[in-house]
Formats: sequence, C-alpha cells, structure tokens
Amino acid sequence: MKDFMELMATRQSCRSYDGAPVTKEEINACLDAARLAPSGCNSQPWNFVVVTNAEKRHKLSELLQCVDGNKFSENVPALIVVCEEECPRLMPAVLEKWSCKQFAQGDLGAAVVCITLRAAELGLASCIMGTFDEDEVKRLLDIPSGQTIRVVVALGHPTDGTVRPKKRKPLEEIARFVE
Amino acid sequence: MKDFMELMATRQSCRSYDGAPVTKEEINACLDAARLAPSGCNSQPWNFVVVTNAEKRHKLSELLQCVDGNKFSENVPALIVVCEEECPRLMPAVLEKWSCKQFAQGDLGAAVVCITLRAAELGLASCIMGTFDEDEVKRLLDIPSGQTIRVVVALGHPTDGTVRPKKRKPLEEIARFVE
Repeated sequence: MKDFMELMATRQSCRSYDGAPVTKEEINACLDAARLAPSGCNSQPWNFVVVTNAEKRHKLSELLQCVDGNKFSENVPALIVVCEEECPRLMPAVLEKWSCKQFAQGDLGAAVVCITLRAAELGLASCIMGTFDEDEVKRLLDIPSGQTIRVVVALGHPTDGTVRPKKRKPLEEIARFVE
Repeated sequence: MKDFMELMATRQSCRSYDGAPVTKEEINACLDAARLAPSGCNSQPWNFVVVTNAEKRHKLSELLQCVDGNKFSENVPALIVVCEEECPRLMPAVLEKWSCKQFAQGDLGAAVVCITLRAAELGLASCIMGTFDEDEVKRLLDIPSGQTIRVVVALGHPTDGTVRPKKRKPLEEIARFVE
C-alpha cells in the first residue's frame, strides 16, 4: 500500500498508453473518489461523461489535438469528460453575496485530482487535458449547452511505468508564514 | 496506514477545534502535498500565506465570519490563505487561444484538497472556507492586489474526531457512460 505522498509522487501526466482497456470497475473506483471530494456548500457541481466507445473516443481524441501534445489521446482506452453544472446549489446566505459559480471550478479541480490519485493507487496512468473546442465536444457527446467542460481525463495503462521526478517550485517560493 | 479511499472518507469539514497548536513540520507537510499537485502546463499558480500569529489569526477569523458558520475559525491554530497568481505561466500554444487564467482556479482546487488529505493522514482536522471580504484579507496580510484569494484552509485538532458519513449524490446521478 502507498501512503499519500507516494501516491502524489506516482501520479503524473502520462502521454503514452499501450491501448489495453480499463475495466468498468476501475473507472467506477476512480469516479467514486471524485464523488467524495469536497465542494462549496457540498454542492457537488460535477458531471462525468465516460467515453470508452471506440468511434466516439476517436472523434474526441481528434478534438483534443487542437494543440500539440495530445496526439497520445488516440490510444487512451477511457476518456472522462469533466463537466461543471450550470448553476450549482449553494446556500442562500452565500448566494446573497456570491455567484452560484463562485466555487465550482475549484471543486472540479479537487474532484479531478482525486480521480488521478485513485488511478495511481490502482496502477493506472492518467493525464488531465484542458485544451479542446468545447462546443464541438458538447455536440459530439450531447452535453447540455449550459454546462462548462473543464477538462478531459485520460485513463489507461502506460507503455512505461517509470515515475519521473517532479519539477516544482520550492516550498519557500510558494509559502509565507505570518507567525 | 490508510489507503486513499479511507483518507477520502476521513477528510471532512471540521467546525470545532480544541485550539491546540499544529507544528510547523505538520503545516509544511500539508503544503508539500499541495506543492506536488498537478496544474495547467505545470504553472503551479498557487501562493500560500500561513497565519499562526495570534493577533492576525483573530483578525482573519473576524473577516471569515461574514457568513454564519465560520465562527469556529476563532479557535483554529493555523489558517492557510490560498492565493492565485495574477497571470500563471502557460505554454505559448495554449495562451494563443486561452487566457492565462484558464486553469488556475481548478489547479488551486486540486492543491487545496491535497492539503486536506495530507492533513487527514497526519490526524489533523481541516475545513475549506470560501466566504470573506477578499480586499480586507489582502489588506490584513499584505497580499498583492493582482492575486485572487480563493479559499482559506483551517488546520488544527478536532474536539471530536468522529468521522461523519458523507452525503453525496449516487454515482449514477453524476456519471454517464458512452460505451
């Protein structure tokens, strides 16, 4: 079993998949982690469209290739399209001062990283992709126009399971203490 | 050691703290998890201001009490103010079509949930608070005006460590399969 920091170190953006399928149980396990993520007023403003159908996957992959670097998505067995609800249910006292969209994008970010950490625990590879023509993806998958597609998460088996060292800013650069 | 789903189940919004301090090592361990979170183009658009100073904590807690439910923050030993950089560094090909702010809010959501999961692993309680007068918090802590404060994370020891069952939408309600 891996502790949390080992999971954090293992989770990485994988851009090379061997094409082998992931099971529905594995996909559900990842989504179940997202389901338990925290959200503003527990609004749970997320919706997931899981694409494993070969034809739809191929078309979705084409839409993901609008910038270089996403060509690998052709070979990904499961693509999870992560959608934000049009107007998440926040508490009335919060809605008095803030928009219903105040927290949703951050909430989806939390849910998505939980998907990738659970995938890492299951020995699956993942990659979070954020560049695509949103309207085209909505048309392809019949996603309501009021929703916002934030990212698409690739889930599959890596051709190479080597864990790369992480390139991150040092703690001193990102944190300040008022003691 | 807890597996990932146990951590997810243990992490919960704690609104009652015994006031006992958390160590700098514990705080750094939580921030180190955030540091390893994924972000758009690895931009790492986060900044953390950790407030443990009693006077500043008291003033920050007052600013968090703009809606009911945050009164507990008076008794929290460490408050982590989570700030988003003004314009995160994305790749030029991404910036051609999207704003520099495209992914940052989701990235911060990912970093924040990692803080709370690492805290749960360490036996600490946490709560993510999103309602406050942002300008007042910036003035109190000398946070640059171009940054956006997304949330404040409480970190401390719970008066009651009981894990509550989670109230969440069932998987069928949040996920759809295109198979």
